[in-house]
Amino acid sequence: MSDRARPGTDVDLHHHGDREVGDGLVDLAVNVRLPEPPAWLRRELADSLSDLASYPDPSAATEAVAARHRRGDDEVLVTAGAAEAFTLLARALEPRHAVVVHPQFTEPEAALRAAGHEVHRVVLRGDFRLDPALVPREADVVFVGNPTNPTSVLHPAATLRGLLRPGRVLIVDEAFLDAVPGEPETLAGQSFPGLVVIRSLTKTWGIAGLRAGYLLAEPALVSRLRAVQPPWSVSTLAARAVVACCGLQALAESEELAIAAERDRAHLVDGLRERGIEVAGAPRAPFVLVHLPDGDRLRLRLREAGFAVRRGDTFPGLGPGWLRIAVRDRATTDAFLAALGKLVRGSGPVGEGHTPRVQNLG
Amino acid sequence: MSDRARPGTDVDLHHHGDREVGDGLVDLAVNVRLPEPPAWLRRELADSLSDLASYPDPSAATEAVAARHRRGDDEVLVTAGAAEAFTLLARALEPRHAVVVHPQFTEPEAALRAAGHEVHRVVLRGDFRLDPALVPREADVVFVGNPTNPTSVLHPAATLRGLLRPGRVLIVDEAFLDAVPGEPETLAGQSFPGLVVIRSLTKTWGIAGLRAGYLLAEPALVSRLRAVQPPWSVSTLAARAVVACCGLQALAESEELAIAAERDRAHLVDGLRERGIEVAGAPRAPFVLVHLPDGDRLRLRLREAGFAVRRGDTFPGLGPGWLRIAVRDRATTDAFLAALGKLVRGSGPVGEGHTPRVQNLG
Repeated sequence: MSDRARPGTDVDLHHHGDREVGDGLVDLAVNVRLPEPPAWLRRELADSLSDLASYPDPSAATEAVAARHRRGDDEVLVTAGAAEAFTLLARALEPRHAVVVHPQFTEPEAALRAAGHEVHRVVLRGDFRLDPALVPREADVVFVGNPTNPTSVLHPAATLRGLLRPGRVLIVDEAFLDAVPGEPETLAGQSFPGLVVIRSLTKTWGIAGLRAGYLLAEPALVSRLRAVQPPWSVSTLAARAVVACCGLQALAESEELAIAAERDRAHLVDGLRERGIEVAGAPRAPFVLVHLPDGDRLRLRLREAGFAVRRGDTFPGLGPGWLRIAVRDRATTDAFLAALGKLVRGSGPVGEGHTPRVQNLG
Repeated sequence: MSDRARPGTDVDLHHHGDREVGDGLVDLAVNVRLPEPPAWLRRELADSLSDLASYPDPSAATEAVAARHRRGDDEVLVTAGAAEAFTLLARALEPRHAVVVHPQFTEPEAALRAAGHEVHRVVLRGDFRLDPALVPREADVVFVGNPTNPTSVLHPAATLRGLLRPGRVLIVDEAFLDAVPGEPETLAGQSFPGLVVIRSLTKTWGIAGLRAGYLLAEPALVSRLRAVQPPWSVSTLAARAVVACCGLQALAESEELAIAAERDRAHLVDGLRERGIEVAGAPRAPFVLVHLPDGDRLRLRLREAGFAVRRGDTFPGLGPGWLRIAVRDRATTDAFLAALGKLVRGSGPVGEGHTPRVQNLG
């Protein structure tokens, strides 16, 4: 018996925003929008507490997802969050040349490595738009986020479809797409050989603790993934949440939340700009990415001032000075911007040479 | 990219009692004792519904398990049910010669096969007692259930310890041991190189739908298993249930339930014997195993009479005619025995030649 090869990596791929939130800090580090699940969802979950003696059955959740995206039941696999989907893909696929398009959520690369696969990184720079020419022809597994965490960039569906190839599995992580009004550029409703779309309910509905997500793919691929999924992997409550969150009422509410998040993001972007900080790329998700020469010090200063933002240096392709800031309601954002304003000097946009500097308050 | 080798098997390893329970049938097929979680546990879970926005954190659950079994925190891995533990073991270990001692719960073998490993079966016969001489010396991974599902036999701890070898991982599935009063023969509190003990909360507490369990092993092995566990695998509610069920009050209640189950089992065994049916082995778990020449027909007849028992023929090493019957409260058992009595003729014990036969009611 031998340990499976687990090559090391330069950053801690398991570092996530939840590690940055401490007692009493205002959380702009974690990408969960609601502070708790909405009342209707809590009622659904409370109702199922007396059903827990039975083993879970994902049938109703599978049908609800299929109906929501107009796919066949056999094109749906409900999972214990998107994290399980990454693990199942890493285990079921045997890539000769796996590619992860970075910067992006680190768990797909971590899952590939944990399964013993080598990972090739394609690193986007500048405005973080997807350049298909960067993906090598021999890549037989490709992971892309859309919109991408942490860059907040939304790639065109046509560009993504252009990455499909015979013998290649393209995995598009749409964990944040329900936070973009109208869900533009989604591939969830489209069936192509080798296309896998991953969805999460965690962020919009405040149920990170419940582990509920799903993937959509051609039936043969779904079967391969189901074959390596532990039995009863999706809990009764998670399955119930999937059904509830695929309902018309929930979808309408989700759209309203997405529109509100877009307004709140514009307010955050404007406020940052007024303080001399330009966000990277063209943000479309409920978080923005910024880079400051003194970003690391600023993050620590912000913690002292009571605000947690997400360090960016644990995302491959970023590095020191990058910060991810979650979009919150206007009041929270205003409080954050006020604290930020006290910490940075310089008033013009970064591009004009007025690079904001963290003041030495010590 | 190639499919991982997944050798076939002669029986459906994913067949479980939950598939045998239909609408309106009295359930003697599934090994979950309570019809719903107790009120104190439902309250705990209801309380955590407003905590779901945060990502799950297994720390408190890990500490509670360590305290309950007097082990170090680094000797504990909380899992999404015992099923996840099997999957993690199958993925992290690279057995050259994996052995599953049958008849037993089929998911360990299914998990090994899903991970691409060949499985060697050691099949116990007769009274289903563990004969260590049957386990080949070259076995480097060995799965044993204790007490074993479906035989209900409890193996001595000393016999199990005798299976430990340098370079071998011995996995003892104690999913039902908390249903044996006093938890005799448990290895959960004992640390040996290569020993893994798996526990479940599902059966005693009526939370099969929640996915809550854990394993105990030496720290190095726990680290290897944690490395292949998807992040946030254990939901907030499952972690909360683990903490609650490790409390002194819960342990005292568990012991009472175990004592009651023992009485109820004796009542079931007596009732079966009065109808000419001897149970196999020396049952210690809250289910019994029986064999009748016409067992398969009897099972179907029982369904027509409103009672679901678990078919035994999907357990490797058993075959046609074997049935597993769950221990229920006295009233349920009496109703079952009454229905059974109408279906079998013959009054003496099987061993005396009065083999009970299913009456042809058609």
